[in-house]
Amino acid sequence: MKLPLKGIIPPIVTPLVSNTKLDTAGLKNLINHILNGGVHGIFALGTTGEATNLSYEIRKEFLDRVCEFTKGRVPVVAGITDTCFEGSLEIAEAAKNAGVDALVVSTPYYLPISQNEFIIYLEELVPLLPLPFMLYNMPSCTKMHMTINTVKKAKELGAIGIKDSSGNLPYLLALAEEFKSSPEFAVIAGSEIFIPETIIAGGHGAVAGGANLFPSVFVELYEASLVKDFERIDRLKKKLLLIEEKIYNVGAYSSKYIKTIKSALHAMGICNDYVAYPFRKFHDAKQQQIQQHLKEMEMPETVQAR
Amino acid sequence: MKLPLKGIIPPIVTPLVSNTKLDTAGLKNLINHILNGGVHGIFALGTTGEATNLSYEIRKEFLDRVCEFTKGRVPVVAGITDTCFEGSLEIAEAAKNAGVDALVVSTPYYLPISQNEFIIYLEELVPLLPLPFMLYNMPSCTKMHMTINTVKKAKELGAIGIKDSSGNLPYLLALAEEFKSSPEFAVIAGSEIFIPETIIAGGHGAVAGGANLFPSVFVELYEASLVKDFERIDRLKKKLLLIEEKIYNVGAYSSKYIKTIKSALHAMGICNDYVAYPFRKFHDAKQQQIQQHLKEMEMPETVQAR
Amino acid sequence: MKLPLKGIIPPIVTPLVSNTKLDTAGLKNLINHILNGGVHGIFALGTTGEATNLSYEIRKEFLDRVCEFTKGRVPVVAGITDTCFEGSLEIAEAAKNAGVDALVVSTPYYLPISQNEFIIYLEELVPLLPLPFMLYNMPSCTKMHMTINTVKKAKELGAIGIKDSSGNLPYLLALAEEFKSSPEFAVIAGSEIFIPETIIAGGHGAVAGGANLFPSVFVELYEASLVKDFERIDRLKKKLLLIEEKIYNVGAYSSKYIKTIKSALHAMGICNDYVAYPFRKFHDAKQQQIQQHLKEMEMPETVQAR
Amino acid sequence: MKLPLKGIIPPIVTPLVSNTKLDTAGLKNLINHILNGGVHGIFALGTTGEATNLSYEIRKEFLDRVCEFTKGRVPVVAGITDTCFEGSLEIAEAAKNAGVDALVVSTPYYLPISQNEFIIYLEELVPLLPLPFMLYNMPSCTKMHMTINTVKKAKELGAIGIKDSSGNLPYLLALAEEFKSSPEFAVIAGSEIFIPETIIAGGHGAVAGGANLFPSVFVELYEASLVKDFERIDRLKKKLLLIEEKIYNVGAYSSKYIKTIKSALHAMGICNDYVAYPFRKFHDAKQQQIQQHLKEMEMPETVQAR
Repeated sequence: MKLPLKGIIPPIVTPLVSNTKLDTAGLKNLINHILNGGVHGIFALGTTGEATNLSYEIRKEFLDRVCEFTKGRVPVVAGITDTCFEGSLEIAEAAKNAGVDALVVSTPYYLPISQNEFIIYLEELVPLLPLPFMLYNMPSCTKMHMTINTVKKAKELGAIGIKDSSGNLPYLLALAEEFKSSPEFAVIAGSEIFIPETIIAGGHGAVAGGANLFPSVFVELYEASLVKDFERIDRLKKKLLLIEEKIYNVGAYSSKYIKTIKSALHAMGICNDYVAYPFRKFHDAKQQQIQQHLKEMEMPETVQAR
Repeated sequence: MKLPLKGIIPPIVTPLVSNTKLDTAGLKNLINHILNGGVHGIFALGTTGEATNLSYEIRKEFLDRVCEFTKGRVPVVAGITDTCFEGSLEIAEAAKNAGVDALVVSTPYYLPISQNEFIIYLEELVPLLPLPFMLYNMPSCTKMHMTINTVKKAKELGAIGIKDSSGNLPYLLALAEEFKSSPEFAVIAGSEIFIPETIIAGGHGAVAGGANLFPSVFVELYEASLVKDFERIDRLKKKLLLIEEKIYNVGAYSSKYIKTIKSALHAMGICNDYVAYPFRKFHDAKQQQIQQHLKEMEMPETVQAR
Repeated sequence: MKLPLKGIIPPIVTPLVSNTKLDTAGLKNLINHILNGGVHGIFALGTTGEATNLSYEIRKEFLDRVCEFTKGRVPVVAGITDTCFEGSLEIAEAAKNAGVDALVVSTPYYLPISQNEFIIYLEELVPLLPLPFMLYNMPSCTKMHMTINTVKKAKELGAIGIKDSSGNLPYLLALAEEFKSSPEFAVIAGSEIFIPETIIAGGHGAVAGGANLFPSVFVELYEASLVKDFERIDRLKKKLLLIEEKIYNVGAYSSKYIKTIKSALHAMGICNDYVAYPFRKFHDAKQQQIQQHLKEMEMPETVQAR
Repeated sequence: MKLPLKGIIPPIVTPLVSNTKLDTAGLKNLINHILNGGVHGIFALGTTGEATNLSYEIRKEFLDRVCEFTKGRVPVVAGITDTCFEGSLEIAEAAKNAGVDALVVSTPYYLPISQNEFIIYLEELVPLLPLPFMLYNMPSCTKMHMTINTVKKAKELGAIGIKDSSGNLPYLLALAEEFKSSPEFAVIAGSEIFIPETIIAGGHGAVAGGANLFPSVFVELYEASLVKDFERIDRLKKKLLLIEEKIYNVGAYSSKYIKTIKSALHAMGICNDYVAYPFRKFHDAKQQQIQQHLKEMEMPETVQAR
């Protein structure tokens, strides 16, 4: 894998038929869908991928299938974070065997953990990892916001980048600034709406959930940001707001990103909309609302599909 | 098991030799230690028990050993909460096979979950549970605070009680009030400092981490609270503050309760002080501080041991 | 007066121009200020009211003015406790003549008195009282903490309620529990921070010193507690902590409540800040600190006033 | 009055017929009784004198009578402490008019007061006092223990001595040491059992409640202490322990000194045993016990009386 990791890297959903069975065909469709849209990488087993709600068996099988269907066309990174240390290592090994390119390490997330404890944890974990790793800052789920100092220490331990989903733009820009002199260290936005700011500040890409649905929109926004084409950026940001308004906001609570993306993918004929426990997929009314909104939105992927 | 669950129910630590090996002899000592102190039940695989940081294998073996060593002298309840639905069921089955009396169900804890989503989750989970269950409200770890309405709905689904670790005393008192007309539904304090308030308000007991160390102190506080002996309550609350000051506060961050309790148990010759990843046991200086404080504290369990 | 006494009953300060002269205009302002804030009663001549430091003449004149300005809009209760029996009766008679609704009886407070001696004292005093009376448990000033048994005996002698300022929450909750079957007997918190716990446990109100300053905040907390709106309770408790931090803690020692409340009332343009001997009002620096903090606190009463 | 004040100064009881009427004949007897016993001064309106439980009227009348009956044979000092500043001044003026030699100032005793606040209080009070004053340290009743620094500041403000009733012997000895270089400043023990220690350490006398009953015993102990006659001291201290055992301990609680002394004086035919509210005199059984014990004790005053 060429460093730094960059571009649009969708955190792919995990298509499921049931709580214990992958929707393999749906996954194949999904991967083709996003690669056709021009994405630069794939992030499997992230928050949108419902990783923590899946058994180790299904997570491992998923990584096998993702790599099988991606066929090396783009790098694949895989989340390994678990509250159980051995669980993380088990997924890491499976990721290596499946052909994953790098691991994504967030914070053990049940008991709140301090900056210092996290570094000590990395000191134990990293030597045992069979692949390079990047950080994943996700305080709304892990209750721990990695300070820049923590990120620097993690980099010394080998981190090849960070995906920041804190939603804190100044922090994200500070990361970009901090690591400018380390051109192989990737600063990746986890908030899709910050793509232009991240790229313009010297960051490298975005893990954009919406790219599951409309990969080309995100790729175009990334490219417009690289060349600082503010007019195009402006036009494309409006599309992102439309996704927020017409897709995500059909749902509620934190689970809405998973539910609405799966529901829209289902409406687009790409994969099943089953959502793993503890969450449930949309009932019909919401599903129909998503379907209706998709029609109204006039996004390249849906217009093209007609 | 006789309902309601009541009295002092220590959330026992999980004595470990390493990340993947139980300290079986230490566990036997610990169980005898707390039963000698008069506790009324045992809560295995809670937050203090590091459940989420342990593999399923070790969690299951632990439940076997806990029941083997307890020999039915008091009820044993076991935490089954996991972000993975099948994981929870796997522990629940193992708990039944081990001889556990009831299960403890908290909220899946990675992605924040809404009240309504939690109820829907329980509607899926509860019919599959092989044993009665009680709720565990632990917002600082799960990011979800069960409203009283949610607790009422869970009770309709079969919950036999709730352990509240929110640290919100008005809420805990409201629970006691709300369920007064349901004498079999246990309202259990998860904050050990609220034992008197809970009992006086009509609640039933406490899951008190400090009872790993000084079970008799907590049992006496429970008994003093039952008879509203305010002088004794006052004297015993001072002991609890001493535990806070001299034991817990030797540590820092959320993990301090695990680290300090294990360190003190080690100093008392009861079990190993190994702490599972991502956390680490105390270095020597802290360990010696704990040892010194134990000597100074003049608690029944340590004075007796000399 | 309708029983039980309930709601927010500020222990009003006694506005003074000098040690021997009331600030009558200030008192009128103060009463209008707290009634505008929605309080449910007034407690005159309590600890915050500096009763024991005032001559009988000024205490009697104060009761006349309080009733004159209150005009029966809410019940007025008045402290009569004195080390001298005849002194208590003199204030009690004056209270009746002024139009006070009930008397508040604490423990004669110089020589420590036993539970039994206090009951014998009440047996002598109560038949001579011209108005109903409630108890006032104030051990930090009287050195005597009324046991629940003592309160029960006092109730048999006619007590219509108790204000508990012991700061002992388990005791306060036990009072609420004990007298649940006596719906006309009021259990009133004297520690303003315990309002939610008191109300939720079935108690009736609070004598809240801070309600001199921010009556609406306390009234809202009382109302939120009645409906168990924990979110609002939480938000309002933060305001109470702010009052503690930004107002009370500008002072030191027990007299700080009197000094800071009077200083803040002065800064709010409500009444004079003179404090009766043996205490002295704040010097300029402290007074300015209070003024500055009031600006920063953004409380309804001060924001509104701008 | 010659300074320093010294010798045995009984804190005389206030003989009463009822709560509002002096037992004037009894007072006359009492004064003659103690002067016959050789005492060196009289302390009126102290704790044993029930000052705080008496109306101003009766306190003032009492001072008149005490001076009238003492006829200048020994100095008379009078307690003026009150929670109300004007009340203290009123008694102080009355004391001067009655012919009292010096005033005794303790701490305003309802709301706890700090060292610094007490000094500020003295700065206000002392310039208004018509007579010299001494301090009275009585923390069990006032909740404030005067530090030696506070006593030094009070001395700068004019204090002519201190009576210490803290029961803290090291403190009392430290006072004696501290003021050795101020020969006019009296260090007076308020705990009668410490007479020898006080005198030997350079202190000046004792306010001894038991000297109401057995003045000669205390005077002899004072004299034995002055000449360091340890054999006599030893014999006399046994008599003091006998008073403790046979008289004071017939009662209970803090009020026991007042009740038992009045009861014994009554049994000795000296004055009425009425005790002011909130306390009550002994019932017959206790009264008979006192009478019986007096017979058994073989004290000079009772043997002589037969």
